[in-house]
Amino acid sequence: MKIIFVGATGTMGSYLVKALEKEHEVVRVASKGGDVTVDITSVASIEDMFRKIGPFDALISTAGPTFVGPWEKLDDKTFRQGVEGKMMGQINLVLIGQKYINPKGSFTLITGALTHEPQKNFANASAANGAVEGFVRGASIELKNGVRINAVSPTVIEDSPQYFPFFPGEIPTTMKQLEYAFRKSVFGSVTGMIIKP
Amino acid sequence: MKIIFVGATGTMGSYLVKALEKEHEVVRVASKGGDVTVDITSVASIEDMFRKIGPFDALISTAGPTFVGPWEKLDDKTFRQGVEGKMMGQINLVLIGQKYINPKGSFTLITGALTHEPQKNFANASAANGAVEGFVRGASIELKNGVRINAVSPTVIEDSPQYFPFFPGEIPTTMKQLEYAFRKSVFGSVTGMIIKP
Repeated sequence: MKIIFVGATGTMGSYLVKALEKEHEVVRVASKGGDVTVDITSVASIEDMFRKIGPFDALISTAGPTFVGPWEKLDDKTFRQGVEGKMMGQINLVLIGQKYINPKGSFTLITGALTHEPQKNFANASAANGAVEGFVRGASIELKNGVRINAVSPTVIEDSPQYFPFFPGEIPTTMKQLEYAFRKSVFGSVTGMIIKP
Repeated sequence: MKIIFVGATGTMGSYLVKALEKEHEVVRVASKGGDVTVDITSVASIEDMFRKIGPFDALISTAGPTFVGPWEKLDDKTFRQGVEGKMMGQINLVLIGQKYINPKGSFTLITGALTHEPQKNFANASAANGAVEGFVRGASIELKNGVRINAVSPTVIEDSPQYFPFFPGEIPTTMKQLEYAFRKSVFGSVTGMIIKP
């Protein structure tokens, strides 16, 4: 299976690529480094990425820039970090990628527990996550040729201990749990699902 | 209580304003007509609206422009209708309005069942709704001075029969149920809640 992995050089991406590339052809995509670079806030850059890579069977995204910081600094301008990054960036990967994906292919996007369990400093991520989850449900009944779409929604990530203090009482999602969730989406049959690892 | 009603001339707004103005001072706001006009896609226009109206106790929004149409026409450009309208429009009403609202005031935004129950032609609304609901949860733990925030999430509206064919099997939300939901948010004590009428 040919898998495009957007966010391949991040904390989640590095682990997941290593796990998946043993059995599959993984095209590592990132804003810097990787096999192909992309700026997910640019429609032209996304188009260019898909043209370069050609037909594929699955796209996984763990790319989720949002504004993290004090509520007082949240305004229309800072809010756009999550709108253009984690939200429209991922949504455009699907809206554009559907023209290049093979029949019965799949898209798997990243959201997170913040959608339903807010934490201080993360209102922008809660909104971006909610948008992506709503979109996943909406897109799942519209995509053609048996193409599926899901999102994986972890809590704070085991390999990102710098975030633990912001998520008091939250049991971290282990890297293995994360891997299983993405496997369920890519190799299983579900669609329109928000998978909690 | 001084209530700002954004979307006052719409189907929901007309009914709700009539119900609320018997007991409260309602400032009717709309893109056209009303006591004050606003373009919710413009930060400057929203700032201007709040400056004109001054301190208030509750803001209700039933303003939710999104792209409704075939999946094939959904791209970055058409998607922006929901991003700038129902999503950022309502989010900016809160981010800016928090500077003008009285202590213990409340914001009540509009979302809809499409967040969790998609229908064809409405993926843009599913995403915008999800974003607003995530934001409502995130903002509810950040707003100061006892200010509350909730969303009301109806199904298809009783007084909008033109939408019934797009929502097969969906029991319409009656205008009275809608009124009760908004009353629960504005006059009750809950915060961070998605109220289903």
